[in-house]
Amino acid sequence: MTAPGSFNPQAFRSALSTFTTGVTIITTRTPDGESVGITANSFNSVSLNPPLVLWSLAKSALSLAAFAENRHWNVHVLSHEQEVLSGRFASRGEDKFAGVDLDSGINDIPLLHDCTARFQCRTASMYEGGDHVIFVGEVLAFDKSERAPLAFQSGQYALAARKPHNGARLAAEPPPECSYTEDLLGYLVGRAHYQLLDELRRLLHSQKIDEHGFFVLSVLCIRDNLNLTEINNYVAYTGKEVSQSMLLFLEKQGYIAIEERSGEQRFVLTAAGREVSLEQIALAKAVEQQVTEKLGIGDAQALKILLKRLIQISDPGLPDLWAPAPQLAARLG
Amino acid sequence: MTAPGSFNPQAFRSALSTFTTGVTIITTRTPDGESVGITANSFNSVSLNPPLVLWSLAKSALSLAAFAENRHWNVHVLSHEQEVLSGRFASRGEDKFAGVDLDSGINDIPLLHDCTARFQCRTASMYEGGDHVIFVGEVLAFDKSERAPLAFQSGQYALAARKPHNGARLAAEPPPECSYTEDLLGYLVGRAHYQLLDELRRLLHSQKIDEHGFFVLSVLCIRDNLNLTEINNYVAYTGKEVSQSMLLFLEKQGYIAIEERSGEQRFVLTAAGREVSLEQIALAKAVEQQVTEKLGIGDAQALKILLKRLIQISDPGLPDLWAPAPQLAARLG
Repeated sequence: MTAPGSFNPQAFRSALSTFTTGVTIITTRTPDGESVGITANSFNSVSLNPPLVLWSLAKSALSLAAFAENRHWNVHVLSHEQEVLSGRFASRGEDKFAGVDLDSGINDIPLLHDCTARFQCRTASMYEGGDHVIFVGEVLAFDKSERAPLAFQSGQYALAARKPHNGARLAAEPPPECSYTEDLLGYLVGRAHYQLLDELRRLLHSQKIDEHGFFVLSVLCIRDNLNLTEINNYVAYTGKEVSQSMLLFLEKQGYIAIEERSGEQRFVLTAAGREVSLEQIALAKAVEQQVTEKLGIGDAQALKILLKRLIQISDPGLPDLWAPAPQLAARLG
Repeated sequence: MTAPGSFNPQAFRSALSTFTTGVTIITTRTPDGESVGITANSFNSVSLNPPLVLWSLAKSALSLAAFAENRHWNVHVLSHEQEVLSGRFASRGEDKFAGVDLDSGINDIPLLHDCTARFQCRTASMYEGGDHVIFVGEVLAFDKSERAPLAFQSGQYALAARKPHNGARLAAEPPPECSYTEDLLGYLVGRAHYQLLDELRRLLHSQKIDEHGFFVLSVLCIRDNLNLTEINNYVAYTGKEVSQSMLLFLEKQGYIAIEERSGEQRFVLTAAGREVSLEQIALAKAVEQQVTEKLGIGDAQALKILLKRLIQISDPGLPDLWAPAPQLAARLG
């Protein structure tokens, strides 16, 4: 426990930042009509009746005079898609409102678009708060969208992964005595993978394509005209190996064509191959849509971010299927 | 935009709750020495110099007198493992401190254990805040642990899934023009699965076990003594089918034994089979440990919660491997 006298501002800030918050932009207007806006995470609710909210502003802030003089200000609870806006309004100097769509709120205070929630307020009290001023505002009007909110924790933007009210156990009862547990990450990722594949497997069955064929068509759909070695480089992450005979089988089905060039065989997708591939993508997108509706957009986004981070940290150094082809990279560079 | 006069308290509360918060328990002591504690998410930081924090308490709260009289109180930022404690301190009536380990803080105010951060405070100001009182406290001492904090959003407990500073893209450049995107959930789950399997695959190779064999041993490790149909029921979620000859191969390797009972073959794990299974589990746990260290405990927990929710909502109705066996369930019931 850090005791008085030995306060390290950085350690104090770090301890405070463990308290998760949302992110808001608060706007007002100077007496000569200039728009003012700052990013703040010191917002919180205070009272339901009367409806009051509060936030704190550093006494050193350039915008203090504007907020002190204009008793009207709007609080915008930012959505997870407004991270860039948050960064812009957290920095000094530039014209923060350039190119930003605005509504005009009560008393002509700027109202940002596409937020999770907005509160139009009038200062009820300004209280002394050390190196900050605490603004308590009466909420005159508010609205709310279905956009998932942006969160902030320990200096990083975040999305909330909500815990179900009834817990997140898969089985009704604790598992039997056993070294395996259903809480094992590898099991959870594996089961999620197989369950998401369930519908796709049925589609593949009707298309007469096996898992290997699916990987080949997917790779060629992203990056056409490859030889067998290149295909296997891109498929390597699955632990499967594609053989020449599998490719010949796909050719026989009319899904791929073989091109001979200077003694080398290269494989390209046919129109029929592209069509079945598009059906597979459409199905994957439909499955994702269903999952997103059930999880909620914010949670689905959180899941995707965590999976991307998991993929990055567990990457055994595989070729990047999504990187631009060398000639494209050169053109862009 | 809901305008003044038409304020629906429930809609207002719902809009406010989109702002993500942490969860705190704030404690004090009555003049006659009784411990008092309440759950609050209205906490926020105010000032660094002097170090000030604030929170709001309903004027109708039973604990108001205690907090108003005792100028000392402690704020505990709860960890993700303290959800039950949060619920207990959010309800009225029962002896909230029963069985709770406590330190004695400054002025003998109760200090809870195992929190993410703790702030020992003395009231600097009490401000009028409608139906609430705003407590501003000077922080006299604080500490912080590495425990991941609990969050709260739209009426649900949550964990923050942190976004990397540099975004969460997998590839350095945008993917080429193509209907597939690396942002597809099915692709992300699949790639995460295959990458997590990477080390396990090498272990399986050295154990001379293929993927089917791995599933069989895993199932028998959790639930021993099954016939072929039962094994396939439990393996069904992977889309693989186990054949009699695969089981005979595992028997030949000495990993499983076949028991004939009233004309039916049942399969049981041998000591050698259990041993290779335990090696696989140990590896899976080591991989999870590495991932957790790199992601952070809170993010790893968030990922597991989201995967469990994903599994629940995409469950095509498969047999529950983890449910207690009927005879065990009867014994427990």
